[in-house]
Amino acid sequence: MFHHSSKLQYQVRVDKPSPAFAKYLQQAIGGVEGEIRVAMQYFFQAMGARGDSKYRDMLMMTATEELSHIEFLGHAVALNLEGAPVEVQDEAAKDPIVHAILGGMNPRHILSSGLSAMPVNSNGVPFDMSHVYATGNLGADMLANATAEAGGRVLASRLYNMTDDAGMKDMLSFLIARDTMHQQQWLAVIEELGGMQAQLPIPNSTPQEHEATEHSYYFLNTSLDEPTPQGRWTSGPSLDGRGTFSARDKPEPLGQKPDLGKAKPKSGTQTEQQ
Amino acid sequence: MFHHSSKLQYQVRVDKPSPAFAKYLQQAIGGVEGEIRVAMQYFFQAMGARGDSKYRDMLMMTATEELSHIEFLGHAVALNLEGAPVEVQDEAAKDPIVHAILGGMNPRHILSSGLSAMPVNSNGVPFDMSHVYATGNLGADMLANATAEAGGRVLASRLYNMTDDAGMKDMLSFLIARDTMHQQQWLAVIEELGGMQAQLPIPNSTPQEHEATEHSYYFLNTSLDEPTPQGRWTSGPSLDGRGTFSARDKPEPLGQKPDLGKAKPKSGTQTEQQ
Amino acid sequence: MFHHSSKLQYQVRVDKPSPAFAKYLQQAIGGVEGEIRVAMQYFFQAMGARGDSKYRDMLMMTATEELSHIEFLGHAVALNLEGAPVEVQDEAAKDPIVHAILGGMNPRHILSSGLSAMPVNSNGVPFDMSHVYATGNLGADMLANATAEAGGRVLASRLYNMTDDAGMKDMLSFLIARDTMHQQQWLAVIEELGGMQAQLPIPNSTPQEHEATEHSYYFLNTSLDEPTPQGRWTSGPSLDGRGTFSARDKPEPLGQKPDLGKAKPKSGTQTEQQ
Amino acid sequence: MFHHSSKLQYQVRVDKPSPAFAKYLQQAIGGVEGEIRVAMQYFFQAMGARGDSKYRDMLMMTATEELSHIEFLGHAVALNLEGAPVEVQDEAAKDPIVHAILGGMNPRHILSSGLSAMPVNSNGVPFDMSHVYATGNLGADMLANATAEAGGRVLASRLYNMTDDAGMKDMLSFLIARDTMHQQQWLAVIEELGGMQAQLPIPNSTPQEHEATEHSYYFLNTSLDEPTPQGRWTSGPSLDGRGTFSARDKPEPLGQKPDLGKAKPKSGTQTEQQ
Amino acid sequence: MFHHSSKLQYQVRVDKPSPAFAKYLQQAIGGVEGEIRVAMQYFFQAMGARGDSKYRDMLMMTATEELSHIEFLGHAVALNLEGAPVEVQDEAAKDPIVHAILGGMNPRHILSSGLSAMPVNSNGVPFDMSHVYATGNLGADMLANATAEAGGRVLASRLYNMTDDAGMKDMLSFLIARDTMHQQQWLAVIEELGGMQAQLPIPNSTPQEHEATEHSYYFLNTSLDEPTPQGRWTSGPSLDGRGTFSARDKPEPLGQKPDLGKAKPKSGTQTEQQ
Amino acid sequence: MFHHSSKLQYQVRVDKPSPAFAKYLQQAIGGVEGEIRVAMQYFFQAMGARGDSKYRDMLMMTATEELSHIEFLGHAVALNLEGAPVEVQDEAAKDPIVHAILGGMNPRHILSSGLSAMPVNSNGVPFDMSHVYATGNLGADMLANATAEAGGRVLASRLYNMTDDAGMKDMLSFLIARDTMHQQQWLAVIEELGGMQAQLPIPNSTPQEHEATEHSYYFLNTSLDEPTPQGRWTSGPSLDGRGTFSARDKPEPLGQKPDLGKAKPKSGTQTEQQ
Repeated sequence: MFHHSSKLQYQVRVDKPSPAFAKYLQQAIGGVEGEIRVAMQYFFQAMGARGDSKYRDMLMMTATEELSHIEFLGHAVALNLEGAPVEVQDEAAKDPIVHAILGGMNPRHILSSGLSAMPVNSNGVPFDMSHVYATGNLGADMLANATAEAGGRVLASRLYNMTDDAGMKDMLSFLIARDTMHQQQWLAVIEELGGMQAQLPIPNSTPQEHEATEHSYYFLNTSLDEPTPQGRWTSGPSLDGRGTFSARDKPEPLGQKPDLGKAKPKSGTQTEQQ
Repeated sequence: MFHHSSKLQYQVRVDKPSPAFAKYLQQAIGGVEGEIRVAMQYFFQAMGARGDSKYRDMLMMTATEELSHIEFLGHAVALNLEGAPVEVQDEAAKDPIVHAILGGMNPRHILSSGLSAMPVNSNGVPFDMSHVYATGNLGADMLANATAEAGGRVLASRLYNMTDDAGMKDMLSFLIARDTMHQQQWLAVIEELGGMQAQLPIPNSTPQEHEATEHSYYFLNTSLDEPTPQGRWTSGPSLDGRGTFSARDKPEPLGQKPDLGKAKPKSGTQTEQQ
Repeated sequence: MFHHSSKLQYQVRVDKPSPAFAKYLQQAIGGVEGEIRVAMQYFFQAMGARGDSKYRDMLMMTATEELSHIEFLGHAVALNLEGAPVEVQDEAAKDPIVHAILGGMNPRHILSSGLSAMPVNSNGVPFDMSHVYATGNLGADMLANATAEAGGRVLASRLYNMTDDAGMKDMLSFLIARDTMHQQQWLAVIEELGGMQAQLPIPNSTPQEHEATEHSYYFLNTSLDEPTPQGRWTSGPSLDGRGTFSARDKPEPLGQKPDLGKAKPKSGTQTEQQ
Repeated sequence: MFHHSSKLQYQVRVDKPSPAFAKYLQQAIGGVEGEIRVAMQYFFQAMGARGDSKYRDMLMMTATEELSHIEFLGHAVALNLEGAPVEVQDEAAKDPIVHAILGGMNPRHILSSGLSAMPVNSNGVPFDMSHVYATGNLGADMLANATAEAGGRVLASRLYNMTDDAGMKDMLSFLIARDTMHQQQWLAVIEELGGMQAQLPIPNSTPQEHEATEHSYYFLNTSLDEPTPQGRWTSGPSLDGRGTFSARDKPEPLGQKPDLGKAKPKSGTQTEQQ
Repeated sequence: MFHHSSKLQYQVRVDKPSPAFAKYLQQAIGGVEGEIRVAMQYFFQAMGARGDSKYRDMLMMTATEELSHIEFLGHAVALNLEGAPVEVQDEAAKDPIVHAILGGMNPRHILSSGLSAMPVNSNGVPFDMSHVYATGNLGADMLANATAEAGGRVLASRLYNMTDDAGMKDMLSFLIARDTMHQQQWLAVIEELGGMQAQLPIPNSTPQEHEATEHSYYFLNTSLDEPTPQGRWTSGPSLDGRGTFSARDKPEPLGQKPDLGKAKPKSGTQTEQQ
Repeated sequence: MFHHSSKLQYQVRVDKPSPAFAKYLQQAIGGVEGEIRVAMQYFFQAMGARGDSKYRDMLMMTATEELSHIEFLGHAVALNLEGAPVEVQDEAAKDPIVHAILGGMNPRHILSSGLSAMPVNSNGVPFDMSHVYATGNLGADMLANATAEAGGRVLASRLYNMTDDAGMKDMLSFLIARDTMHQQQWLAVIEELGGMQAQLPIPNSTPQEHEATEHSYYFLNTSLDEPTPQGRWTSGPSLDGRGTFSARDKPEPLGQKPDLGKAKPKSGTQTEQQ
């Protein structure tokens, strides 16, 4: 069960309200790299967690933290919108600065939300929940979470560079820090469970006989003119310790030429296909 | 530039066509765990790759391989649909087996595609390209790719268990094998670049002074009644070697109580809010 | 800031796990009538609330409650999925009961989530955040919230009728009750602010001179052959007390015949249009 | 059956074509507050209306009116786009005014529609029909319709403030007026059926024994540090006349700690979870 | 401006209500091959039509007809749902026929719409307006319309085969007929304007010097092992009469190897990329 | 099976990087008129092609070509983004040119992709695969493909006019040329199969007795005040040679007034409807 306290998890200060930066910040709320995504992803993973309950607890605790991140970012968007116009007047229409502000805004911040945050990204595209990755497989989910936090910290770092507002920089430095922790926290679960060697390939419970292992450890060079890029993935033991990496160049197809033959009568095709 | 050869990358054989399994297989084509996603993800990452060009080459080569996976899976769906009805007749309507087949199918396999694969998942929801994760950051992208392949192998393993068709099991054992390789291939890039210690936190180019490092290494226990789950993430050196993990219990908010005050005149609010 | 306690807001008990009912229950999680929607809707309205802060507090408190509803519904879905197969075997394929169970399930409950809840509706369509209605106008938002709760209680009542599991009926009776309260709670805000007479038309702050009031109070009968349906809306004082209802039959257009003339050169049209 | 006459329902005049305002107006066509939504919502509600046929007739008549609103708004968009460039030339590229016009436009108004209206909102996001709310329950549908019209009038009022074109202001004043009527028309149905007391809780046909009525009339204060906001919803008779409002502070969970135990073999999880 | 008359454009009769066929029929309402699509496509094309106004008139007239098609199909869905259960009882849960009916239905026909049509396809995916193709180019739009009607008649023919209800077959035979007309009606516009020779390539107003005409008339065989499929497109005059068809086998790339070099500092990439 | 060679199909040169034009070019990658769409459409049509295999081969060959178009367009976007800022500084914030550049960009080109192409359109809306039209009917698919290429060439022509960069104009002139070929290539299939007379109505395999042919050849004038627009579609032989065109003015409905009667008990409606 959830509870709330009235103060924000972190202080939000906007020195120079910027409607354009409000649009940018939306990426951190409703973007695929944003906080709704991680909050919901950890929440749904927690609800489906089977096995050692401490991972479920971790997931729910951090889901709860991410809800608090949505909250202070939403406040930051609203404060940045304090400088937005809600009216256009004859003289203003000729002012290039007004034009620039309007052109750089999300118009729905005026028209739809009344100068408040929305669950959309910086293009105004609503977040869609298909981005909540929760497979029920702990290894896959931990990687998905580290990925989400890596994307999140990349975004926060870019936002940091795209503002010169000291308050916003301060808030983003907090987000950057928490994303640092969260990246490592999920990868630490993998380390605790024996590291990549023990956890790969995911799922590590797939029986050996379900896998055509002769195809499991070669890099396939599908280029007609490029040599195979050599690296850790082309020789040496595989990361799961179960095989040895190699490479295959200009591979031949292993399958047949597909042919579906004629179409069935009554299948809604042209007569010529039947 | 792309080229094509007429045979499939891998042999596809369906012994007992099953329209229901055709619906299931769609998840591996148009699901978020599917092949359109990885093909397009690696393709877009390759197009945006900056830095050492060998990673770009790897990405494009594997993107090309994934296009071939779509192709043989698409053929497998069409072969499974060979057993689907295209007509309903009086007597059939009373047959529970016909009912079961129809109820277990994707109706659009009859109505829309004419017994062929579609770029949709097993619920018939079209794939949407927002799932193509490509940040321009090599570390974030490698994690995203390992995640995608982990999800892919989880899916292929589940599909393997949900069919008793020997041909389908054979094809899926190939997919399981290639996903094994692809998971490790992307993580091997991270290993080659110094492993998690060197690559974390992502982006590792964010200047230290952009981060509120006092918040970078503690696990936040937001639960009111659960003790902190202890593990690799609560003590010891952080995975990036830059800090020491700890935990904070029942944290106090660090921010203010948000208050936006009154609404502006002409902002389209109720009079009582202004 | 959000917090969590480890127990569910309400007891969840499933006597006869039903994968089909798990699919149905998804509507209450990820449907437009579901709990993600209201949780996020109240949360975003709270973050944008301007004017008397008590409405903001109400919104945040109930948003928090709705998050707890997602949580126990998610658990109910997982418990209902305990009866789902994860493997198909030769003999089973001939069993009509297995067919019926599989045909009635969401296949992604097996393939994607590993027998857990997902943020999708009963058709497997992911929830999309464009359904979070938050205008910044208190009156519009209160109506939107009452609407959401009306839809929610209609759904919960239908789900109640579609199960014969005593545990599920008990859980749904709690949801039905909370939806009763929430419908009224939001309408009570309108009553407290003077009722519909004071709050309509929304926004009540639009200046009279922005409105072509000669068109504000007649019902338009656009039918060629039906008489105007008489009722509260065709005569008597308007609900906002500012006008008198009437009706107009077979109305004449008030505007011009539209004509855009020729297309511009270089506009990408056919020559014949230019 | 539908018919059409060649003139617009209302006169459209654009004195100063503004491609930026064309983008804004799109919100009134393809936004969730727009005319496609209400036209389709009333149309689908009408097609599913059961009970007294006069409500069906009302719905179909107003659906028809809303189609006419789409039509004149579409014309307004096209007229505003008459001022848009279809060509960029060397010198123009240096002109900040051209830059401002282009930056403030929806690029698809040039690239995709050829200077015409599109069924998208002001961010260019296409309207999606999941926003057509039609439950088959008359009370829920009337609230949904009043909500849609409230959102519509909020939007029209904001658009009115964001233009200084006399023709556009005139057209919007007509929309504001019709939205006034439509808000009240749907609420008048509720009044005619006995008002909120008789219609709440929606559905009013849910048997009392399906509801855990001990949870039906209290406001739940889920905050850890805020007092309950007092108001019409915390004391006095409930709006449905069936109970008495109260409030509960810092509530204890009523349910269990969820625990799904171990994962099944063959469920595609990590070995450690099984 | 639109008007309505109370009778349906065509008679709807359902002899044996079938909730499964109701689901199938949804494809003709809310599918990409369905009536919402063509109604809205012709409507938006009409609103943007420039040039000879008779094409605008045609478009609006047929848009209006398609609205009437939605209406009778919506009624057909509702009548087919008359046989759907709204309650599950202990004994029924064991009945394979009830299972089959429920498994073959769209659950939202019970849960969300209350036994009525919805603006979704046969998978329950809501129609999204990005499928309204309206380019402002008459030739492109006429082809798009013929395509939509071809898809529509393919669908109607398949639906005809998938029912044994005489009333439904009668209704579908009407739809098949109207789709016959509509396919030809749009292509007749092209014929009237000089046929493909005059109208191709679309847009026929693109100046010759904007086109690299040396690449305009060869078929590109990108296969490594298949001979060029010979046909009308590999030799003889082009359909636009401006060139001669030929073919190119195993083409060499004409461009460079792409290389973006190093990433910029502060671009949020890994240090190794900079 | 697919293969790749390292050079681009066509040379890409950007003389004056323009982040705004990068946004515009996205329409040609991820728009409904773009290259992902045609690549995937031809690919899925090929995978479902039944009948003469040469059409399957054509489809796969051109699908492969379109993948190469995505690739060079993606490179063009990245090169145009070379001029984009990744940092905002105090002084810059006051510069109207910086404002104009930022306002005219897709912010996700900075925040999400790190100055690279994305699979989205010029509004930043991700491509969704429902636009892959593949019916299994050769005639319908050929029309769909000609439509897609018509839209594509309209777009490329408009993009050509919206840039003054010689390199971009050169690349677009290649795209314009290939679209010329592809439009005709698909229509040539229809010509080879006997032309429209033989191929219409699509599907041409629908038995005559499934069609209410008395409704197959009249144009329906649904306008109350406009005369029927006369043309090739109102008289003379139909394009399929099976009938004679005519027109019907102010048509009477052929169906009943719909009436669904009362709602069922337990259907979740209001009591007044039952």
